[in-house]
Amino acid sequence: MKKLSPVTGRVARMHGYVPGEQPAGGALIKLNTNENPYPPTPQVAEAVASEAAGAGLRLYPSPMADALREKAAQVYALSPAQVLVGNGSDDILAICLRACVSEGDEVAYTVPTYFVYRTLVDIAGARRVEIPYVPADDGRGSTAPQIVRLPDALVESGARVKFVCSPNSPLGYVVPLEEVARLAAASTGLVVADEAYGDFGEGSAIELLADHPNLLVARSFSKSYSLAGARLGLAFASPQLLAGLAKVKDSYNVSRFSLAAGVAALDDQDWMRGNVAKVKATRARTVAELRVKGWAVRESGANFIWIDCSAQGGKPVYDRLRARNVLVRWFDEPGLTDGIRVTIGTDEEMSTFLSAIAS
Amino acid sequence: MKKLSPVTGRVARMHGYVPGEQPAGGALIKLNTNENPYPPTPQVAEAVASEAAGAGLRLYPSPMADALREKAAQVYALSPAQVLVGNGSDDILAICLRACVSEGDEVAYTVPTYFVYRTLVDIAGARRVEIPYVPADDGRGSTAPQIVRLPDALVESGARVKFVCSPNSPLGYVVPLEEVARLAAASTGLVVADEAYGDFGEGSAIELLADHPNLLVARSFSKSYSLAGARLGLAFASPQLLAGLAKVKDSYNVSRFSLAAGVAALDDQDWMRGNVAKVKATRARTVAELRVKGWAVRESGANFIWIDCSAQGGKPVYDRLRARNVLVRWFDEPGLTDGIRVTIGTDEEMSTFLSAIAS
Repeated sequence: MKKLSPVTGRVARMHGYVPGEQPAGGALIKLNTNENPYPPTPQVAEAVASEAAGAGLRLYPSPMADALREKAAQVYALSPAQVLVGNGSDDILAICLRACVSEGDEVAYTVPTYFVYRTLVDIAGARRVEIPYVPADDGRGSTAPQIVRLPDALVESGARVKFVCSPNSPLGYVVPLEEVARLAAASTGLVVADEAYGDFGEGSAIELLADHPNLLVARSFSKSYSLAGARLGLAFASPQLLAGLAKVKDSYNVSRFSLAAGVAALDDQDWMRGNVAKVKATRARTVAELRVKGWAVRESGANFIWIDCSAQGGKPVYDRLRARNVLVRWFDEPGLTDGIRVTIGTDEEMSTFLSAIAS
Repeated sequence: MKKLSPVTGRVARMHGYVPGEQPAGGALIKLNTNENPYPPTPQVAEAVASEAAGAGLRLYPSPMADALREKAAQVYALSPAQVLVGNGSDDILAICLRACVSEGDEVAYTVPTYFVYRTLVDIAGARRVEIPYVPADDGRGSTAPQIVRLPDALVESGARVKFVCSPNSPLGYVVPLEEVARLAAASTGLVVADEAYGDFGEGSAIELLADHPNLLVARSFSKSYSLAGARLGLAFASPQLLAGLAKVKDSYNVSRFSLAAGVAALDDQDWMRGNVAKVKATRARTVAELRVKGWAVRESGANFIWIDCSAQGGKPVYDRLRARNVLVRWFDEPGLTDGIRVTIGTDEEMSTFLSAIAS
């Protein structure tokens, strides 16, 4: 008997998310997946080593990651019941869809945006409502500060879940908090403010939580805290909403190692802020130098920049950089082929990048 | 405007999985969640500390956990494409449902069994086909070796996914490989052989994979490898099936810490086997002593035993043990209230348990 694959037709047809390349060797300057160029606080290594050497490893971790939840509540001035810990903020995003949509329900977001949303909607068998939206920005600074008004199609949609990635990946623009509030107020479903890059911008939708029980703020340890390898994310929302979400998470979704790493990282805010300040300074210098050289670079509130390559095409620029051992991100996606996204590295790395892109 | 919760009605109505208690203090003898009483190989602490101190932590881990996949392929004599790594075997089980069922599809398994299946089916909005099944065993050794024939209702069901937990939790019986093979051959959907406790029994459905492209074997690092705190599980199946499953996993589902821990644990098979042998010896002694004292204890292929408490009721026995600082598992579930599940601890712990249950 020849059997069909047990995988559903929907999953068989869908495309999985393709993460940015993780090159094995160390020869490349890696500016493709928005990692922090600086290491995490040394307290992380200490805390993890101590956890690994301790007697607890044979035991399950705290199902709700209590120690990290409490630490995060302290740092963000919330109660522990307003915090949920995820195995990366991707886990948080997946949990949101698992809890809030059924097959055929609508999930809305502007595009371009973080491509994982699309994959998650496909996995859920939900319907993507993708609203094309590129805020005006000539890439030469003349429109700063950007005024971003969310499209009415998003605000007025009856979608069960709406994602707002701010600062936006891959374009870098920031959605003002008033707009997030307007969206949450107008929506009956869940509004997810994805602030994976929030520490590189200003303000946080966390301050809107008290007024909007359908709002959830997602944060990541992968960028500002330099812990992409630890897989840690946080969700902030009302206790009632998070109680619903907790039902659909894996019961022990975060390891003892990552818990210890997260507490240590949150405990050293100065370290994180110092790295963020360095990245922002390097970002400003990089943008200024690129503009002087004639490149159009959008304003960015994140740890990356979007460079318009419409004169040469994004792929040739990507290829040229790659040939010079600089790895950036080029997306083979509608509306994005004419640009590249470049993570902000160290000053030295960005100098190499600037030479490579000019040559 | 008073808003309804954004959580779907299905999730609002469902009960989340309730993990076994994780007491904070150290005063209790913890025999409730089937952890290994012995620590993992010391190589784990070394590997994790080195990973934590290394320069890689700011970078994403390998999306497919390549190093661990390759190591597991070596240990289990498979190809890396036949291995998928999960954030605990719960992640593997969740991935199976996400990939293979749509809302309303049937998922079948015998009960009692691992309660997470029920939660996962509810999350998926699928239909539970629960087939009551308790193999004959007088608890006094007279039926050993157990002959377990899977119920025809399970074998003949057209369910899209079928779970077989062998060795079974909470009862401890083992399903012979011929029966797993018969089930896989008769099924068109996915058959998951959940071998979380496999190292405490004998044989593995891994040897059936070549003949059954719809079979998946799930294994855990939480029991035999003493790494419940690391959240690591493995799936073994055909490359084609795993390629479908990989599409619906979180793209970076396993941290760098856990990857390092997993490779180190697999690298020290002698350590794991030594602990398993100790647990099995203690299990044999515990079962024998309980039977001498008049308790009916089922044969077990796992690191726990099921004790019939129908004379006194499971809850009173649980309470009495708890009052004596011994924590076991009592399930407030149909068919299970008259027994307790007791994890095999060290010899010393089991001596305390044996005194406590007798007093």
